[in-house]
Amino acid sequence: MNVGDVPYRTIWLAGNGETVEIVDQTRLPHEFVTVPLDTLEDAAHAIRAMLVRGAPLIGATAAYGIALAMRDDASDPALEAAAATLAATRPTAVNLRWALDDMKAHLAPLPAAGRAEAAYARAAAICDEDVAICRAIGEHGLALIRAAYEANGRSRPVQVMTHCNAGWLATVDWGTATAPIYMAHDAGIPVHVWVDETRPRNQGAFLTAWELGGHGVDHTVIVDNAGGHLMQHGRVDLLITGTDRTAASGDVANKIGTYLKALAAADNGVPFYVALPGPTIDWTIMDGLRDIPIEERDPAEVTDIPGRAPDGSLTTVRITPASSPAANFAFDVTPARLVSGLITERGVCAASADGLLSLWPERRGRAAGTG
Amino acid sequence: MNVGDVPYRTIWLAGNGETVEIVDQTRLPHEFVTVPLDTLEDAAHAIRAMLVRGAPLIGATAAYGIALAMRDDASDPALEAAAATLAATRPTAVNLRWALDDMKAHLAPLPAAGRAEAAYARAAAICDEDVAICRAIGEHGLALIRAAYEANGRSRPVQVMTHCNAGWLATVDWGTATAPIYMAHDAGIPVHVWVDETRPRNQGAFLTAWELGGHGVDHTVIVDNAGGHLMQHGRVDLLITGTDRTAASGDVANKIGTYLKALAAADNGVPFYVALPGPTIDWTIMDGLRDIPIEERDPAEVTDIPGRAPDGSLTTVRITPASSPAANFAFDVTPARLVSGLITERGVCAASADGLLSLWPERRGRAAGTG
Repeated sequence: MNVGDVPYRTIWLAGNGETVEIVDQTRLPHEFVTVPLDTLEDAAHAIRAMLVRGAPLIGATAAYGIALAMRDDASDPALEAAAATLAATRPTAVNLRWALDDMKAHLAPLPAAGRAEAAYARAAAICDEDVAICRAIGEHGLALIRAAYEANGRSRPVQVMTHCNAGWLATVDWGTATAPIYMAHDAGIPVHVWVDETRPRNQGAFLTAWELGGHGVDHTVIVDNAGGHLMQHGRVDLLITGTDRTAASGDVANKIGTYLKALAAADNGVPFYVALPGPTIDWTIMDGLRDIPIEERDPAEVTDIPGRAPDGSLTTVRITPASSPAANFAFDVTPARLVSGLITERGVCAASADGLLSLWPERRGRAAGTG
Repeated sequence: MNVGDVPYRTIWLAGNGETVEIVDQTRLPHEFVTVPLDTLEDAAHAIRAMLVRGAPLIGATAAYGIALAMRDDASDPALEAAAATLAATRPTAVNLRWALDDMKAHLAPLPAAGRAEAAYARAAAICDEDVAICRAIGEHGLALIRAAYEANGRSRPVQVMTHCNAGWLATVDWGTATAPIYMAHDAGIPVHVWVDETRPRNQGAFLTAWELGGHGVDHTVIVDNAGGHLMQHGRVDLLITGTDRTAASGDVANKIGTYLKALAAADNGVPFYVALPGPTIDWTIMDGLRDIPIEERDPAEVTDIPGRAPDGSLTTVRITPASSPAANFAFDVTPARLVSGLITERGVCAASADGLLSLWPERRGRAAGTG
């Protein structure tokens, strides 16, 4: 999407055709800095230090990390070592492992001399496939925003609320939850986005606000506590969030606090949609609340907040008493009963086993638990 | 309550019997600093600059502000001027105006020579009355915590969740929502408190965590987003919050985000109680959602977060993009249907017109709207 009128992806090839470039997302929203990746270790560092984040972008960066490694040494041991190095950067990232397996499967049969070129081509294809999925999500979700605009008689902007960052910064382009918003904006439908700041990591305040602003989408940052009040007063037309993992039943795991917004949406008759790429559906799980494990992360993410000091420097402030413990639950699970619909690359469906199977009929007849 | 084994109130007379002392709450939780108030202007500054906050404590400070003024000049014009100065410090604080009217009514009939002594006595009585109300709230709420402890077979600590700071720091002692917790702790009932950090002003992380820790109450700070997840997993036995204003119907206005916690409590069968002193009931309002105005405050409270920098200094960091607007809604209204009970100084009642009238029978027969 655009950053000050210049279209960007989150990862791209430099003019020399070999160096990979990314946005250092740890500097956002205060500084927009692009970083060249010239080696396997550069790519591993970018993932490990979270210069890149978001499952699709992590996968794409890992794929290019293999390509960078192949440029130096395309032997079998080097391919294995590169994959192992990249896999260790974020041990729980499913998409990372998928991308590495995909790259290995593509490269292993090739002679070493052809691997570097093939790796660049395959990494580019992985990026393009992600963009195509996000674009399709956007097109299906656009119809929902367009319908809301028609429903208000084209009298005012459509009010969308989102939580966390399921934006283009988390993918290669478009994002998932944001794709319908960007498409509506580009189609001339006036849209205003309520951006939850999304404690504890503030991905809403840091990233979603920044990327919406960069593309010229009208938005307002609010604290996570404010959404219920806005919905009570008719100031939200629909919610769209992303998801880290969707159960085959339509239960969705997403950034902590999503469940509270879904409750408020249901209590006020506001549609609550979840945008997701098909690969994030976990067909083995039917009860998301029971079976999706919730990661507990470092309490420092709760007690210490990074930002820009008055002198312009980037620093971190402690907000809790030195002796008070904190707990940091990363995700919660929103039961399918609270989800109005799932926006996927194959269309919009009900958040239910039947709904998902209507779009993925090839899964029909397989018992849950058999994957 | 205790601060490191020393019992404190939030406002007290110094050893000389004339100087008033307070805790500078703007320095919490990082520094515990008491401040002497020797003049009317000291008291006005303490309220204006929010060294003291919380309706009861603001009222008590204003009362002592009148006493400090009378020590200098106890004439009729001086009494009027002092009340006007103090009233202007927080123009929307109902309790502030009540305390000033009460002080004027007590002092105006007296000869100037007796006013200073009478003012100190009346200010002390206002403080003691507040403590008595909070103690009574605590005793009634204690029964609820005790019942939860019996219900779990005394097998584990009672898990209480609270939002914002309705603690002793907001009153003269005990607090409202915290009074039952302190009483349970003092009675030997094991209690653990989940403390919502309470964005945007972080009163939970800054104040509630600090005061619970000071009194030795086990607690954990969480982001406001986490409460739903904890309730889904049976990790909360009951919620107790305060309220800024209670409608005659039992609808409660409280810090933004309270409504979201009440929704999660209802969805998971967790009791949601609101603790309040009778004077905060607004008998003129029956529909809280429609008729309680919600203040919009400075967006800087959303975009900028104060805390302690790594070098120990107190500073503020900006968390949003420089060009992103923010909105700051201070309160929301939780409909009575989501409130399990109101804990008052007269007992616990249903959150309904009938419930409130059962404890305030003298209000029965007065039509809503007549005050």
